[in-house]
Amino acid sequence: MATKKKSPVAKDAPPSGGKRAPPGKKANDPRDRATIDAIRDTAAGIRDMINKKKKPELKMPVRALSNVKYDPKKGFFEIGKDKKVRTLSVATVKTFAQTLKMMALSKELVTNDDFATKRDAYYQSKNWGDARFDEQSESDTVMDDIEALFSSNGVSREQLRYIPDQHGGAVAGELVVIDHDLDTGESIEIDCTRFGSGAYAVPSWVEHLKFRTKAKFILCIETQGMFQRLQSHKYWQKASCVLVSMGGVPTRACRRFVRLLSEQVSIPVYAFTDCDPYGFANIYRTLKVGSGNAAHINQFFCVPNVKYLGLTPQDIVDFDLGKATHPLAEIDMKRAFDALKNDPFFQSQKPWRDAIDQLMKMQKRAEQQALSLHGLNFVIDEYLPAKLKHVDKFLP
Amino acid sequence: MATKKKSPVAKDAPPSGGKRAPPGKKANDPRDRATIDAIRDTAAGIRDMINKKKKPELKMPVRALSNVKYDPKKGFFEIGKDKKVRTLSVATVKTFAQTLKMMALSKELVTNDDFATKRDAYYQSKNWGDARFDEQSESDTVMDDIEALFSSNGVSREQLRYIPDQHGGAVAGELVVIDHDLDTGESIEIDCTRFGSGAYAVPSWVEHLKFRTKAKFILCIETQGMFQRLQSHKYWQKASCVLVSMGGVPTRACRRFVRLLSEQVSIPVYAFTDCDPYGFANIYRTLKVGSGNAAHINQFFCVPNVKYLGLTPQDIVDFDLGKATHPLAEIDMKRAFDALKNDPFFQSQKPWRDAIDQLMKMQKRAEQQALSLHGLNFVIDEYLPAKLKHVDKFLP
Repeated sequence: MATKKKSPVAKDAPPSGGKRAPPGKKANDPRDRATIDAIRDTAAGIRDMINKKKKPELKMPVRALSNVKYDPKKGFFEIGKDKKVRTLSVATVKTFAQTLKMMALSKELVTNDDFATKRDAYYQSKNWGDARFDEQSESDTVMDDIEALFSSNGVSREQLRYIPDQHGGAVAGELVVIDHDLDTGESIEIDCTRFGSGAYAVPSWVEHLKFRTKAKFILCIETQGMFQRLQSHKYWQKASCVLVSMGGVPTRACRRFVRLLSEQVSIPVYAFTDCDPYGFANIYRTLKVGSGNAAHINQFFCVPNVKYLGLTPQDIVDFDLGKATHPLAEIDMKRAFDALKNDPFFQSQKPWRDAIDQLMKMQKRAEQQALSLHGLNFVIDEYLPAKLKHVDKFLP
Repeated sequence: MATKKKSPVAKDAPPSGGKRAPPGKKANDPRDRATIDAIRDTAAGIRDMINKKKKPELKMPVRALSNVKYDPKKGFFEIGKDKKVRTLSVATVKTFAQTLKMMALSKELVTNDDFATKRDAYYQSKNWGDARFDEQSESDTVMDDIEALFSSNGVSREQLRYIPDQHGGAVAGELVVIDHDLDTGESIEIDCTRFGSGAYAVPSWVEHLKFRTKAKFILCIETQGMFQRLQSHKYWQKASCVLVSMGGVPTRACRRFVRLLSEQVSIPVYAFTDCDPYGFANIYRTLKVGSGNAAHINQFFCVPNVKYLGLTPQDIVDFDLGKATHPLAEIDMKRAFDALKNDPFFQSQKPWRDAIDQLMKMQKRAEQQALSLHGLNFVIDEYLPAKLKHVDKFLP
């Protein structure tokens, strides 16, 4: 094949094959310029140390639960002050070089308005000579370090153009998403009311999206089945809202999407999950305050103003769902105890502690689709309207 | 709350709360009428047996690998002739009643142009008195039986309006999807060229969709990362195609979507996966011929005309990807052996047997993103164009 001769030449090919990004549109976005400045400043700092005959070093926040704090006012797990210093030495020279190469790749991606997954970056490194990664686990670690490093400048991994290899959930309702054509820069408007039974699939990275909406709130839904019901029956029209399908624990892209959307349009965000410890402590907690072992990114990914509209233990009583409940399994009990004993979020929120206590007393859990007990569209005709009359009662 | 008093009344609530489906639009679709006829005929047959003082019975195909055959001409795993007979008796009376109730629910769903997930159906059954299910596993089994039963009439579970609780993948490119408003019946056209970096999220069930396209082929992609690259850089425009993100092994809805699309627009379907036994035997094989233990549904869900454009062992040589390969793990070897020893599809396709032999000799696997070795957009600028020059060389 033609490429057979070609590929050797490609060994030090530029990331984007050198064919992208007409000069006109290089890093027009102010956040892109901020990202490039952050990279340039970090690199300049290293060069200065070298010029001053000092050993160059990079200071990165320690990524560990031991270096996490939770301030209810701020509303998310924050990375602490502990830093690890990577100084250039015989032992660290390879990692140090890899860190700089990955920063350089990031700068090139921003400049060319392109992006790379973890895997892409790993394979790219095979062209870095002695600085190449032998295992993807190595390049993932260096990428996590860079992410932590630049998080101190308020720059996220996605702004560095390293994107997750995962979808960002599905969206439908009273929302216009404003994207742009990556090749021409032309603006593209996506009307999320025009999808029929389908939806808008959120891309793997969302930093560049803008939004326009008249919706009253954003509803983040645990299961695709419930999302499909609310979407197909246009609940978003009846309630004037935006529906987001999280599909279990929301991905980075999904959480970032909801965060950006709620910031830009400043309307309330509600979460609708099953009434069980997984729905509370895994799905809702992650959406609201982020996760402990990735505290350096929570500033970008958590949605501190989200409130819990989902099924509560009291709902099982109020909506007569007893017939549709399941007994708590051992894993449920374990998750519930963990939440009460070890989770700073639940510990700081009495209404949540009470709800989890009630759940453990009842020894019952209920899935959101348990509402089908009273008719498939009971959730639309009765449950959600009744809940929305008492937003003040939503769990924090 | 209002609903507190209300819910007892709701005990025998109609599935859709009796508020849906204006008379005008009940079962207008010919396939919906066929579904209702199939249900009515089956029910009538049972009534006749009762009137004739015979024990009523239901004949369903046996759902087991032992009852599967593969005819390369037909191109998918077919269910065999073995039937299991469920006769009404003291022992079977509950299951028998549950089967009929679930058929009745299906008829109501079709009539009201509504749908239900497995979970919805399980919770609905709590209103069926003695015929209620105690465990969802029971209702799932009865639903599988019904699915097998009506598959003999060419009616799929989705046509019975029992939909999976899962997304259907993401789609972008030269395609207009024609859906309708479930409440008003109004037709809705979705232009999949207008999503920027996002995409069209395929709904959980797709029976009602129509399509319009000038594309030359449909490209089904294993990873979201690769899909995102081809979508963001509008590969679909350069190559005039439709991009489908399978996200690993394609879901029922995703496979059904590709099947319906390829039937309606009759253009080739190509699959682009990693070069490893999982990509070959799990993802591609499932897309093409379906799965052995669900043979009764493959007639609806497989895509017999799909061809394998994805990374082959020979591509690792031709595109000089050696530096970006990984050694075969034990699990890879096991999958490869299984494919050659136990899989009627690979056994019937010599080119596939040769490719798997070559893979095992090389003892190497490569991910589709390994192409990033030669530049992030090498896949767009070199690999795909080179492959598409030799469609005749695609694996069957």
